[in-house]
Amino acid sequence: MNGKKDSFEIKISSATKAKLPLAGKRSGWIGFSCKAWIWNVWEFCNEDVNRVAFAFKVGVAVLLVSFLILFQAPYEVFGASIIWSILTVAIMFEYTVGATFNRGFNRALGSLLAGILAIAVGQLALCTGPVAEPIIIGISIFLIGTVTSFMKLWPSLVPYEYGFRVILFTFCLVIVSGYRMGNPIRTAMDRLYSIAIGGLVAVLVNVLIFPIWAGEQLHKELVDSFNAVADSLEECVKKYLEDEGLEHPEFSKTVMDEFADELAYRKCRSTLNSSAKLESLASAAKWEPPHGRFRHFFYPWSEYVKVGAVLRYCAYEVMALHGVLHSEIQAPYNLRITFKSEIQEAANQAAELVRVLGKDISNMKKSLKTSLLKRVHSSTERLQRAIDVHSIKFTKTLPKLPCAHSSTPSDFSNQLADLDENNSIEKTANPPSETLPLARTESYHETMRKQSRRLHSWPSREVDAFEEDGGLNTDILPRMSALESTAALSLATFTSLLIEFVVRLDHLVEAVDELSKMAKFKQQGF
Amino acid sequence: MNGKKDSFEIKISSATKAKLPLAGKRSGWIGFSCKAWIWNVWEFCNEDVNRVAFAFKVGVAVLLVSFLILFQAPYEVFGASIIWSILTVAIMFEYTVGATFNRGFNRALGSLLAGILAIAVGQLALCTGPVAEPIIIGISIFLIGTVTSFMKLWPSLVPYEYGFRVILFTFCLVIVSGYRMGNPIRTAMDRLYSIAIGGLVAVLVNVLIFPIWAGEQLHKELVDSFNAVADSLEECVKKYLEDEGLEHPEFSKTVMDEFADELAYRKCRSTLNSSAKLESLASAAKWEPPHGRFRHFFYPWSEYVKVGAVLRYCAYEVMALHGVLHSEIQAPYNLRITFKSEIQEAANQAAELVRVLGKDISNMKKSLKTSLLKRVHSSTERLQRAIDVHSIKFTKTLPKLPCAHSSTPSDFSNQLADLDENNSIEKTANPPSETLPLARTESYHETMRKQSRRLHSWPSREVDAFEEDGGLNTDILPRMSALESTAALSLATFTSLLIEFVVRLDHLVEAVDELSKMAKFKQQGF
Repeated sequence: MNGKKDSFEIKISSATKAKLPLAGKRSGWIGFSCKAWIWNVWEFCNEDVNRVAFAFKVGVAVLLVSFLILFQAPYEVFGASIIWSILTVAIMFEYTVGATFNRGFNRALGSLLAGILAIAVGQLALCTGPVAEPIIIGISIFLIGTVTSFMKLWPSLVPYEYGFRVILFTFCLVIVSGYRMGNPIRTAMDRLYSIAIGGLVAVLVNVLIFPIWAGEQLHKELVDSFNAVADSLEECVKKYLEDEGLEHPEFSKTVMDEFADELAYRKCRSTLNSSAKLESLASAAKWEPPHGRFRHFFYPWSEYVKVGAVLRYCAYEVMALHGVLHSEIQAPYNLRITFKSEIQEAANQAAELVRVLGKDISNMKKSLKTSLLKRVHSSTERLQRAIDVHSIKFTKTLPKLPCAHSSTPSDFSNQLADLDENNSIEKTANPPSETLPLARTESYHETMRKQSRRLHSWPSREVDAFEEDGGLNTDILPRMSALESTAALSLATFTSLLIEFVVRLDHLVEAVDELSKMAKFKQQGF
Repeated sequence: MNGKKDSFEIKISSATKAKLPLAGKRSGWIGFSCKAWIWNVWEFCNEDVNRVAFAFKVGVAVLLVSFLILFQAPYEVFGASIIWSILTVAIMFEYTVGATFNRGFNRALGSLLAGILAIAVGQLALCTGPVAEPIIIGISIFLIGTVTSFMKLWPSLVPYEYGFRVILFTFCLVIVSGYRMGNPIRTAMDRLYSIAIGGLVAVLVNVLIFPIWAGEQLHKELVDSFNAVADSLEECVKKYLEDEGLEHPEFSKTVMDEFADELAYRKCRSTLNSSAKLESLASAAKWEPPHGRFRHFFYPWSEYVKVGAVLRYCAYEVMALHGVLHSEIQAPYNLRITFKSEIQEAANQAAELVRVLGKDISNMKKSLKTSLLKRVHSSTERLQRAIDVHSIKFTKTLPKLPCAHSSTPSDFSNQLADLDENNSIEKTANPPSETLPLARTESYHETMRKQSRRLHSWPSREVDAFEEDGGLNTDILPRMSALESTAALSLATFTSLLIEFVVRLDHLVEAVDELSKMAKFKQQGF
């Protein structure tokens, strides 16, 4: 199982793949807890070098600002209020360039507004005489506190929450210290220029030293999401077809979202929750000047969010497929295996298409997906046809061959017979290379036993629950039959969801096309 | 449609129901844009009075702190450094009591640690003489900046991000001003007590004036989630059975997540994204003392998060149901209507159970759900049986009655005939009261026409995509037949997902039981 895990890990985090061998060399280190700790830190850094870069940049920025106080010459020029610039750097310095710009804008505008307001109110209070002055100041502080706090709760103003905080405390500081030192304009100006210096240092360090662009992160995040969805789809289908009922974890565990052996699924689930992340990265990216590969102005960052939404729409289907995989009601293994090649083919083609789309975005290239789409459609078509041919199997238990296909064309019934034959051959004489024939047969029976036990135990609470309804016959047999029938339909659910996933891919292709047009991706292969 | 919307709105936001009539009186106001704006603000306040309370509390808190400077007596005691307490209040004051405690703790511990570190480093630097002193200070600032910035990226330390920021700027402020004023201990102490005063004011105002408890919010949020899931399930099933193919919005709209007429669905979707909110509320609630209805110590707030996770697990099924509802491949309307009463019954019972669970949590009462669970199970059982009886319909187009049920027991075939008869009666002579018989018949044909058009147009891009695979016969007929068959299976998908939802309800009941045990809910009806 461990080996399996590793292979997934490498598959998913393809970005860190190149660095893993380097990390692997040091595996001899691990022994003491301290060394394990160092190893963890080392791996954490290796996973994303930007983390180290960010930490160093903050160190450099605060050091630069503190020079202004540590050296005699600038200190004499700026005076003690320069201390505010340290605060500004510490508070303003964000991970990405765009977020730093955004926060800097909030801080600058907030301080400016608060400064102007404070000077106006301060001058007004000064004119009213020494008795009324503190009263007016007190009332203004209360009003500003109330209004800014209320405004930052307003849904469309939530992104500027920090700006409102800045307005509040800058206003208080300026007006109060102005009142005590008698010069609100001086306090406001001092504060403004020290904020300006702090902000300038933060921005310069952030942009000039190893810049971490929000746009680049967004680009990478979206590509990773594509790969996560593709991996997760393949993993899910693989498990569904492989699964022989032996490793069903307890529901109490699965519901707590701990699918330890399904790394791709967890990645996919985090994709579902990534909308907020994509949006915040996109809104940060809009603040960034053209850079790196994103060279033209007004780069369509919001289009990334849209593609992410369509991808999420596809990922919902993967989640539903995963739900069927871990459902308590399962189609019997031999029914699942009937459609193995068709399901696998359709899923692989679909995953391939998703991966190609991700790769195209990653390389900022535009390629024709017609042939790929055709292949996906035709393999899905094949799956649908197979279901049509075998659909009678969903309605009755497997052993009996129903008479219904007397109404189907003869080639269909031939195919049905062929497929059945194939299955029985596979089960008895032609086992897959990774399992022994005996093991396969055993596990098949084991599955059926477990299957039946599971069906018997459903619903888990009241076995006598159905004795209430008097009209219908309530002996145990019809219930079980009904349940077995719906159990087989679980396979229909699985395939329907897979087909729906493919249908949604059309729209994903369209969305990526739109993005590649707007972002002026290069045409490939012409 | 408007009336429908309203009824949903009222159903969902049951907490604000009591206040709506009050707001309704003022509907005459709306006219000018300014008045509309005031109306919006008024509605925003009415929706949650806590918002206004919070804004006033911030105003009061900053006012109280500024008194320390505005009045002569305290200003003489504390001096100019009391200005830091204003900053502390502005930054520390959070929406809920727990979050304020948490942030205050971060700020206090951060300042304390930074103060101790700064004093230690400052004293050390002082001993090394005037040349080495600024160098040591500079290096220490760089190191603190780097280490704190790195640590706050570490996943398990992310919640303390604010604490690390506090450490960084407090350290810089204390050591730098200590260097310039020659007394780091004095600076550190001044800062600590002004933070303590600011923190104390923030906490007292937050707790004593109209406290907004994170625990109460969490409780409410969870109950709302239960109602959202129940409403959404009912809405989805209602639309599925009502929907006559007339109102399918364009996919490009649906994918952008704008289901304007499906309020409950949107609520449910926001439930899916609420895990972060629940977790942050739970982690804030842990900081709160016993209060209101939550009177015992160590109240199991984390159990709320767990119940939320199980509920989310159920909500995934609702999302999948919603996916089938808006799927491009749809089961014909008359097939859907065959199972109308069974589907509706099962969905309504399940929604009822979810709502009762929510109500029990809301009232902090423990009640036996056995009879409810029994009813849900038996109605689901009836649905399964109906599917079993009619399962043959999934495999072929509707008009032909297949011969397959010659192999089923005679009572089953009787039932099948019964149900078929019922349906035909319903369709021709016994229409539901809300629709005219003619309208029903017309819309049915309309649906079939649309259905067929939709099937023809799928896949939307390449109609000639399937001419590539040579082996199978590729004229238009078999493809359509295959597609029609899978279209019928879409109903099987819908019912399977509904059944799976019910299966997961068992675990939801268990999770709520566990919560009610740990939170010592009162037993009801005994």
